[in-house]
Amino acid sequence: MTAYTHQSAPTQFVEASGIRFAYRRFGKAGGAPLVFNQHFIGTMDHWDPAVTDGLAKDREVILFNNAGVSSSSGEVPTTFEEMGANAIAFIKALGLKQVDVLGFSIGGFVAQEITLRARELVRRLVLVGTGPRGGQSMATLTPEAQRIFGATYKLPEEVWLKVHFTDSQASQAAGREFLKRFLRRIENRDPEVNEKVAPAQIEAIGKWGVQREGSYEYLKTILQPTLVVNGDNDVIIYSINSWILQQNIPNAQLIIYPDASHGSQYQYPQRFVRHVFDFLSEQGSSARPLSNPRCSQEIRS
Amino acid sequence: MTAYTHQSAPTQFVEASGIRFAYRRFGKAGGAPLVFNQHFIGTMDHWDPAVTDGLAKDREVILFNNAGVSSSSGEVPTTFEEMGANAIAFIKALGLKQVDVLGFSIGGFVAQEITLRARELVRRLVLVGTGPRGGQSMATLTPEAQRIFGATYKLPEEVWLKVHFTDSQASQAAGREFLKRFLRRIENRDPEVNEKVAPAQIEAIGKWGVQREGSYEYLKTILQPTLVVNGDNDVIIYSINSWILQQNIPNAQLIIYPDASHGSQYQYPQRFVRHVFDFLSEQGSSARPLSNPRCSQEIRS
Repeated sequence: MTAYTHQSAPTQFVEASGIRFAYRRFGKAGGAPLVFNQHFIGTMDHWDPAVTDGLAKDREVILFNNAGVSSSSGEVPTTFEEMGANAIAFIKALGLKQVDVLGFSIGGFVAQEITLRARELVRRLVLVGTGPRGGQSMATLTPEAQRIFGATYKLPEEVWLKVHFTDSQASQAAGREFLKRFLRRIENRDPEVNEKVAPAQIEAIGKWGVQREGSYEYLKTILQPTLVVNGDNDVIIYSINSWILQQNIPNAQLIIYPDASHGSQYQYPQRFVRHVFDFLSEQGSSARPLSNPRCSQEIRS
Repeated sequence: MTAYTHQSAPTQFVEASGIRFAYRRFGKAGGAPLVFNQHFIGTMDHWDPAVTDGLAKDREVILFNNAGVSSSSGEVPTTFEEMGANAIAFIKALGLKQVDVLGFSIGGFVAQEITLRARELVRRLVLVGTGPRGGQSMATLTPEAQRIFGATYKLPEEVWLKVHFTDSQASQAAGREFLKRFLRRIENRDPEVNEKVAPAQIEAIGKWGVQREGSYEYLKTILQPTLVVNGDNDVIIYSINSWILQQNIPNAQLIIYPDASHGSQYQYPQRFVRHVFDFLSEQGSSARPLSNPRCSQEIRS
């Protein structure tokens, strides 16, 4: 157990695939660390310390910026396949043989690509506020997302009150508590992303999200125990996409939180930490025998 | 804490509304007891002791037979409204002012009716393998249910392997473990239901399940914190109905288990007990202010 927390963990760097990846690592070592994959235009500082520190009590947590994002060097690729490959290079550069992978929003697309490209590397998968390739209303930002990201705010971080929380009084109150936690780290915060990040990520979203016949088939090859979490009213990646993930990934459990939008895990951080902890700690929760002969190979569908 | 368990709890009786209700009561007293509402043609012995005893470690558990079922006197009414009224009469006859209510399958319809008719009586609601009035494919038994209940089995209890579990090897193995637990109580088992029960319950299902415009509206008046649980492949009450419940009950959390059918809670009893325990124990999980002025009245929609 390092003494580091979300606030105090130093930003470290590791080189792989010609990229200098920024990362922070803290929590209780031993077992598979949990690698966090961040949302649209987010940095390591966009995670909620109530979630990261909450999970770090029982396991090691690794935050990082993928290529081209904030304190990491390189360029943001315009496909999630390449972002997944970069993430794998980062994880392997740390000398890790097996990790648990958590992805939030487009970080969930990266998490899926990591799993498809390096199956033996991933023990369990946590997909939060995300969806499948070719999901519903995923080829462009949703109308709500366009409006929210297109608006101006008194304080720039207030955009996240609209992205992550519903308009209800209770959800907005939870959002303001989240913003306080989000701003708590003072020293060595990540720089905000540069102006090239959003266009590249949006281009990648367009390729990932385009609907086509059979686009959910690849989900059937994800055999890791998977936990899918979302709010019941996610306006950024519609909640029905979480249902689709659950219905197509063979060993997936779904949890939907009430009166919650894209950042349901920040609205109910204690509940989320408990659910993720339970899921990652459970022994042999594979309900289905590993019948897919391709399960140990790297495949792309 | 009584020393009684699922196996040893005596069958007791209480009179209300001219019915002699059979019930069993055990577990840790104090706080709201959890009242279980049973599925189609089920008796008190159809609950899984891994679930009832698991929950009884931390709270009081009450099993009962509704009117006309097994060791209870009276007739099975042909509407769930009347079954709900009978259940309320039973709960009040025990002198209870507030309870948590769990309903499984058609017991979930009764649980909803209890909540609608006696809002102040219900603290929290757990709806398992169930659906709303006028849900999808609910007006008659599903084709799968007709086939499963219409078939013959070497041992009569093997019907539940087909009702509650999927055809996967892992699910069937879990089912056989369930059947062992299900048969563990030897003394004072409930008699199987008589031949009048199934037709009356099926008639009631027909009235409850018929699809009509606006049939989910009543769900918006259920303001209790609610936990909805199901398997991802429920062939008796299709899983999508659990999604519909979550999307329409204002403060509902949904949990869907993988590779599981109608009796997902018997496939993952430890997980289910933990999830229900967490849900019932959580402080102030109401995310939404109680804005409905009718919330303390008894209404029928």
